[in-house]
Amino acid sequence: MKISILSIGDELLIGQTINTNASFIGEQLTLLGADIIQSNTVGDNSLIIQNEIERLLNFSDFLILTGGLGPTDDDITKPTLCEFFDDTLILHIPTLTKLENNYSKKGRELSERNKSQAYLPAKCTVIDNSVGNAPGMFFERDGKYLISLPGVPSEMKAIMKDFVLPFVENEIFKSNQTRKYFRTIRTLGIPESNLAELIGKLPLESNESLAYLPSYQGVKLRIGTENSNEEKAKKRLADLFQLINSKANDFIYSDKNIDPIEYVHNKLINSNLKISIAESCTGGLLGSELTNLPGSSKYFIGGIQVYSNFAKSEFLHVPQTVLDTHGAVSEETAVLLAHNVRIKFNTDYGISITGIAGPDGGTDEKPVGTVWIGFSKENNVYAKKFIFTSNREINRKLSVSYALYLLIKELQNI
Amino acid sequence: MKISILSIGDELLIGQTINTNASFIGEQLTLLGADIIQSNTVGDNSLIIQNEIERLLNFSDFLILTGGLGPTDDDITKPTLCEFFDDTLILHIPTLTKLENNYSKKGRELSERNKSQAYLPAKCTVIDNSVGNAPGMFFERDGKYLISLPGVPSEMKAIMKDFVLPFVENEIFKSNQTRKYFRTIRTLGIPESNLAELIGKLPLESNESLAYLPSYQGVKLRIGTENSNEEKAKKRLADLFQLINSKANDFIYSDKNIDPIEYVHNKLINSNLKISIAESCTGGLLGSELTNLPGSSKYFIGGIQVYSNFAKSEFLHVPQTVLDTHGAVSEETAVLLAHNVRIKFNTDYGISITGIAGPDGGTDEKPVGTVWIGFSKENNVYAKKFIFTSNREINRKLSVSYALYLLIKELQNI
Repeated sequence: MKISILSIGDELLIGQTINTNASFIGEQLTLLGADIIQSNTVGDNSLIIQNEIERLLNFSDFLILTGGLGPTDDDITKPTLCEFFDDTLILHIPTLTKLENNYSKKGRELSERNKSQAYLPAKCTVIDNSVGNAPGMFFERDGKYLISLPGVPSEMKAIMKDFVLPFVENEIFKSNQTRKYFRTIRTLGIPESNLAELIGKLPLESNESLAYLPSYQGVKLRIGTENSNEEKAKKRLADLFQLINSKANDFIYSDKNIDPIEYVHNKLINSNLKISIAESCTGGLLGSELTNLPGSSKYFIGGIQVYSNFAKSEFLHVPQTVLDTHGAVSEETAVLLAHNVRIKFNTDYGISITGIAGPDGGTDEKPVGTVWIGFSKENNVYAKKFIFTSNREINRKLSVSYALYLLIKELQNI
Repeated sequence: MKISILSIGDELLIGQTINTNASFIGEQLTLLGADIIQSNTVGDNSLIIQNEIERLLNFSDFLILTGGLGPTDDDITKPTLCEFFDDTLILHIPTLTKLENNYSKKGRELSERNKSQAYLPAKCTVIDNSVGNAPGMFFERDGKYLISLPGVPSEMKAIMKDFVLPFVENEIFKSNQTRKYFRTIRTLGIPESNLAELIGKLPLESNESLAYLPSYQGVKLRIGTENSNEEKAKKRLADLFQLINSKANDFIYSDKNIDPIEYVHNKLINSNLKISIAESCTGGLLGSELTNLPGSSKYFIGGIQVYSNFAKSEFLHVPQTVLDTHGAVSEETAVLLAHNVRIKFNTDYGISITGIAGPDGGTDEKPVGTVWIGFSKENNVYAKKFIFTSNREINRKLSVSYALYLLIKELQNI
């Protein structure tokens, strides 16, 4: 089933709001095996919206609109849909009743503006919104479908779950076409190009695919195949995974689509292990990442942001002689920081990051992007050197990413 | 100037990656006074990409492509652009030299695959990428422009800043139409709705506008006017700024579009002041923010990530009795953390953050979202209580934002 998405709202075009609705809709429908053809964003302009609807319906079986259904002045979707479908707004009694109930529950009166939400296009099927006031509007024309969803993420999600996903699943089931199946493999600690060389060319059929999706959470590998038989498709994906795993095993940490920090979170909690950190060039970024998920206090005891030499020697006892002889960015310093933070915080693991984030501070011997990451546990401490890029932001993010990689390598053996 | 954006990549359509590039590009260009007409996303399909380019160029003066310029198999933008412009790839020597230098600096060899990044369309102007290997490609056809940018956000941003924004500004300046003029005013420490109430209704002409652009870096106010005379337009914007400033002075920190962290950075460096921090619920997010800009070691000496009660008492001497009586999230704890971190790190300012990020851990007395932010300087220490939202991520970001607000209020008097 070919599906397109049309997001409506000036706030999206001018970058005031990041379009998370489109990615949610795209992900949910892809998981069902639908094909997302295009995902467009237009402003609050009726003519442009109508042009886009016409055009997207040409090559899509189903068009999903989001945005512009609230009670404020600048909402434009409803009159636009009326114009497009040559329709008129009529009072929809069940929606009015619901509005009246919701407002009376809050002890507030229904204004004329709010009441306008109950006027809906006569030709549409009204789809109940279980978490808000603006219902979905479902149209059919010449065997193609269109639904208009509210822009508020929680309301859009509710109608997706209650109506759109079951509808699409049923339509795909009815059609006898072959379906696409995907599986995502997560890697960490290796750049996209090296990973591609390691994996090389896979024996893929013409309807199969391998995509490299790089991010600071590692390179995701998405393998896809097409089959009318679900069992066969899943078997094929499992075989492809085994093949990839045999080549890139060192860098694959999960055959499910979970982020590195989620992996670390689950492993540390399940094994009841504690961690502390010492951050220089990242200034707190690793700690921020390690405390992203609720429940992180079970394993993250704390850390020291040793951004100055003073902090390194005062709080984590890196001797001045080490700083003078080897420098703050050195194996010796990274090892001392990782070891001493672990001892001071009395944790199972200690991680340190010290590097030259740039753009200044580089030398021939230690260019910008040089980062030492230290790792300490009982009876063992080491540091690894990385040379990342010339870009400060990237170097800081990659430092955190590779620190998590060292931690994951450790946790994989538990 | 009418601008459209075309984002390329299956990972965007299927919701694996949230399209933050489009919102960044939209915001930056809107601030210059350009009109964003449409922002579309298509998958890695050459025909569909070409159709979209053709169509968007019909009603845009400038089309910005992002995505699909890396060194792996699934990158499609370059061959697609060659087909579209009836062009061929040729070896671009400066890009090859740059690639060779970058790889030899890292002591790594340039593979054939990596080398392919130096093959670029003959008809394009190659735009240097100051932070990565994939350059931008700039085309002109029939008085309209197209640029292709890498999908990696930091690289996209670098080329936007170095080339696209100055180019667009100059094009808008060259055109003789009555021009829109904008000015951005930066506020911090107040939610959008409260700010709107404070400012009230402005005496705006029909061709003038006031837009509220909320973000975690505060609410940006963009005032706009239209005039063929630059002097008059600027005078009018200055008057409007004065009017707004008279109403919301407490929350306005700049009449230029600079982020809070840039403001803090410049002020601290110019006044030679040092800072240290103690972070509980933010886990390092404030330190990460304070070390975002190169040169931050001039003022940021370090901090302690006091994520556990153990860390609060062991490193910053919050007595167990205070933790027992008042709790880790309390005025008393915040004050002690801010004061003691300042003394321990021997800095001019000390900032602390301790709160209940959620979703768990809230009580009737201290609901999720309760955050105490402490501020210490010589002869003065205090803490302020905030109650943010029920969302963990938002609470952590707002904590950093309001901590910077307290710091900025302090720095404004210097």
